[in-house]
Amino acid sequence: MIDKKLKILISNDDSIYSRGIKCLVEIAKQFGEVTVVAPNRPQSAKGHSITLTEPLRLKKKDLFGPEVVAYACSGTPVDCVKIAMDKILDEQPDLCLSGINHGSNTSINVVYSGTMGAAMEAAIDGVPSIGFSDVNYDEEGDLSVCKKYVPIIIEQFLKFDKAKSRLINVNFPSIDVGKIKGIKICRQSIAMWKEDFQEKEDPYGGKYYWLLGQFKSDDIGEGTDVHAIKNGFISVVPVKFDLTSHEDIDYLNKEWNINEKVG
Amino acid sequence: MIDKKLKILISNDDSIYSRGIKCLVEIAKQFGEVTVVAPNRPQSAKGHSITLTEPLRLKKKDLFGPEVVAYACSGTPVDCVKIAMDKILDEQPDLCLSGINHGSNTSINVVYSGTMGAAMEAAIDGVPSIGFSDVNYDEEGDLSVCKKYVPIIIEQFLKFDKAKSRLINVNFPSIDVGKIKGIKICRQSIAMWKEDFQEKEDPYGGKYYWLLGQFKSDDIGEGTDVHAIKNGFISVVPVKFDLTSHEDIDYLNKEWNINEKVG
Repeated sequence: MIDKKLKILISNDDSIYSRGIKCLVEIAKQFGEVTVVAPNRPQSAKGHSITLTEPLRLKKKDLFGPEVVAYACSGTPVDCVKIAMDKILDEQPDLCLSGINHGSNTSINVVYSGTMGAAMEAAIDGVPSIGFSDVNYDEEGDLSVCKKYVPIIIEQFLKFDKAKSRLINVNFPSIDVGKIKGIKICRQSIAMWKEDFQEKEDPYGGKYYWLLGQFKSDDIGEGTDVHAIKNGFISVVPVKFDLTSHEDIDYLNKEWNINEKVG
Repeated sequence: MIDKKLKILISNDDSIYSRGIKCLVEIAKQFGEVTVVAPNRPQSAKGHSITLTEPLRLKKKDLFGPEVVAYACSGTPVDCVKIAMDKILDEQPDLCLSGINHGSNTSINVVYSGTMGAAMEAAIDGVPSIGFSDVNYDEEGDLSVCKKYVPIIIEQFLKFDKAKSRLINVNFPSIDVGKIKGIKICRQSIAMWKEDFQEKEDPYGGKYYWLLGQFKSDDIGEGTDVHAIKNGFISVVPVKFDLTSHEDIDYLNKEWNINEKVG
């Protein structure tokens, strides 16, 4: 266990009332002083969205016992981290935890995920951060795997706090805790959701569309997070927010006739 | 100019009624058959957010002349691209253009940007995509730089359509067109927005908070998009949606005692 009493910020995207965040808070209490700022309603798939055209509201909540300061926020997961940093915490936290999300954030889901949005926002601010997701979408599902392995992963993450990697995306497979084969450091599987909207008609004859999609990937081999989960491992992907495709800079410099086109 | 009549999808985040998208549509018409699906209201800073808890609505619009099929959509920029792909276009487009955004999408803004969210969504689906932004936030600002250089950049991008780089983030400096020094292939500057919420009180005594922030960066040297813009260049950053920090995988594999912790 860690000596220092850590200051830990917790958020999520399933709302402050979800079972996943309650489980995460209970675990985090062992590591330090916990502050929770989380959405006041489900905010799944909000990605890195922030709220500019409306103000935010905060409401203090007694949900996690007297030692946990907790606020429900009217904004997105990223808004929650931003307002926590500016208005609630006295100093920058030592650690940010987000989740535990109900549903997978492996592969391309990381781009859409509000859970990872919150963790990434804290990481952008320089706070070591972990996003946790249980690939089981059932909000009443068994959290035994999380209960056992979240503390192990937090300990590993903190032990090497000089690591270059300050943001990790952790996904737990939906299997019995006894069947977990281990933890794998992975890369994000390259994939997409092939959209397939469901068309409906309202009573006035207007059409509306529900977003649905199918997960498509050919990149599910060893080394990917999708492969790890499928084979009974917990996946850990180090994540960055420099989206530059560095390997393409030389290529574009060479191939683009940019100089002759100017003037 | 390109021989083939291209099928081009256009979206943005400032809404279908913005001057930026009108300018982009006029330019894109020279390159092929244009379809527009864009938000019916401003959707700035929506990142890669999608809409799961409400259905989407589409409304056909005659805004860009009879040859341009255009729909206003009730969703986010990413929703617009998704519904275009599934419900409006007969086949996958050859090119997706997003913008022209009013305001900078250099540096960390790429993570929050709805403009880049739309472009990235198309790129995830395998469509070569460009996000365009004018760093001038003035919605009535001069678009002469865009008018001159957007066609040049589209031509370059299409000429090398076997390039590995299928998604670029283009920003135009806010200077007179005659003062543009050139186009620079750049990397995303590492930066953050230091949040600074404005607190207000409603007539009932309740507090609410407006998100404000200050751009902070020590990474503004040569090679960054911020440096290019500041020095009168158009910045072009190749962007990817594999967020894996690949360089950290070996490190974590070596340093984490993951095997001894299982069982």
